[in-house]
Amino acid sequence: MKFLSYRAAGGVGVALDVQGEYLGLAEGDAAFPGAIDRLLRGGEAALRDAGEVLRKQGARIDPSAVEWLLPFNPGRIFCIGLNYADHARETGQAIPEQPTIFSRFGSSIVGPEAPIILPRVSSHLDFEAELAVVIGKPGRHIAIGDALDHVAGYSCFNDGSIRDYQLRTPQWTIGKNFDRSGSLGPALVTADALPAGASGLAIRTRLNGEEVQSSSTAELIFGVPRLIATLSEAVELQPGDVIATGTPSGVGLARKPPLWMKDGDVCEVEIEAIGTLRNVIRAEA
Amino acid sequence: MKFLSYRAAGGVGVALDVQGEYLGLAEGDAAFPGAIDRLLRGGEAALRDAGEVLRKQGARIDPSAVEWLLPFNPGRIFCIGLNYADHARETGQAIPEQPTIFSRFGSSIVGPEAPIILPRVSSHLDFEAELAVVIGKPGRHIAIGDALDHVAGYSCFNDGSIRDYQLRTPQWTIGKNFDRSGSLGPALVTADALPAGASGLAIRTRLNGEEVQSSSTAELIFGVPRLIATLSEAVELQPGDVIATGTPSGVGLARKPPLWMKDGDVCEVEIEAIGTLRNVIRAEA
Repeated sequence: MKFLSYRAAGGVGVALDVQGEYLGLAEGDAAFPGAIDRLLRGGEAALRDAGEVLRKQGARIDPSAVEWLLPFNPGRIFCIGLNYADHARETGQAIPEQPTIFSRFGSSIVGPEAPIILPRVSSHLDFEAELAVVIGKPGRHIAIGDALDHVAGYSCFNDGSIRDYQLRTPQWTIGKNFDRSGSLGPALVTADALPAGASGLAIRTRLNGEEVQSSSTAELIFGVPRLIATLSEAVELQPGDVIATGTPSGVGLARKPPLWMKDGDVCEVEIEAIGTLRNVIRAEA
Repeated sequence: MKFLSYRAAGGVGVALDVQGEYLGLAEGDAAFPGAIDRLLRGGEAALRDAGEVLRKQGARIDPSAVEWLLPFNPGRIFCIGLNYADHARETGQAIPEQPTIFSRFGSSIVGPEAPIILPRVSSHLDFEAELAVVIGKPGRHIAIGDALDHVAGYSCFNDGSIRDYQLRTPQWTIGKNFDRSGSLGPALVTADALPAGASGLAIRTRLNGEEVQSSSTAELIFGVPRLIATLSEAVELQPGDVIATGTPSGVGLARKPPLWMKDGDVCEVEIEAIGTLRNVIRAEA
């Protein structure tokens, strides 16, 4: 199932994408199953039941007439660096023996179609297509063999980066946390609709229609089960937590000359069977 | 003014520390001024008014009979690394030309007297005494000269670190984000009660009563105004955001042999005129 969130007159709406037909219910509707944040906390059954309700009772929605929102409000956002061998090579880094982990605050992320902001202080805004894992079941010290039980679903992620700030000290955090510099969405696609661990899916970025990244999630150095196991050594993962699994080669930073996104550009992150996350770039006012 | 939060029968209470006498009001009390989270969003006037109400109408509280909580629920927690020259030297790092920034999620922080957790997967739990800046007024692109207008107050911070995880890749994030591995508190001390930028205050750590860190906030490489200005290049700072300003020399990692905290240890971070943040270390169950 593919779930999306949208702004409705009475509040937030939840839609099910049934092969391009959108069936929605919103706050105020008697059958409204709850926002996706809440459904995630309700576990697999809550999402499954909501899907059934939307399929049977949802009103048809014109996708061009609604404002799509972040599919859910992410909890903690854990990001993995250097998790595709070709990207590690293009940035001159060794293939890591442990997952390289950094984090983003929710304030750095916008939803589908919302503008990604090129900040006033930099021109070095770069794209990074990533598979996002969405946690659905709490857990600490999760074994690799049990890890996929903790996944509610997947989404697309654009780990937008302000490269000069990211690289001016050894810690990347500030360059990864500019307000509204990245994005997530459009849909939460439940795990049962995808291959195990969302492996083997084509992943690409198009900038103004031109393909600039193209790989497969089969190329992840550390796959989804290993990432969940490693993170859960440190934290109890919670429903709504996101793991952005790293980007393949082709980023603007590694090009000669570098390719930075500018005001008016359109960036699309597409993952096979998950969807296309599209954002326009806007210069900070 | 020094504000603290405590658990009361009806919910949360707020107390004013008037030279060691605690005057409190709790949810359900007619005069309850609101939780400190809310007061922070109300700006300087809300905190000042709450202080007056507590001074006049607060009930005397036995500090040994209540459970103290985090003084407020932090928004984003920005942490600064290598911000004391002696600490940069002891860890073999160059004096940075820009603030080194990483971040912590709220899940990694406990309040005063609550146990800091030594995780199952590591024995390398280290202390880091830090001055915490608490933002009170929103702002983006804040000039250094205006920065202190955005500070509501200060608190003590223990940037507890799982060193083996912190250092096993170039990104420190995971070693700084273990659940309940650091602490904040006990009080939010308003800026008007302290020197400008909380500069020139003695800062120390005691482990089981023995002093292990001792310095002065005058030794910060990047002072509070510069940190606020730099962070606000990237984000709109918000009330409740915290900046942990870095730790002086003496950390357990830099000792020969290293000094790690273990189950039953008592760690105290004390900052002159702000207070003492005390936590017991407990091994993860």
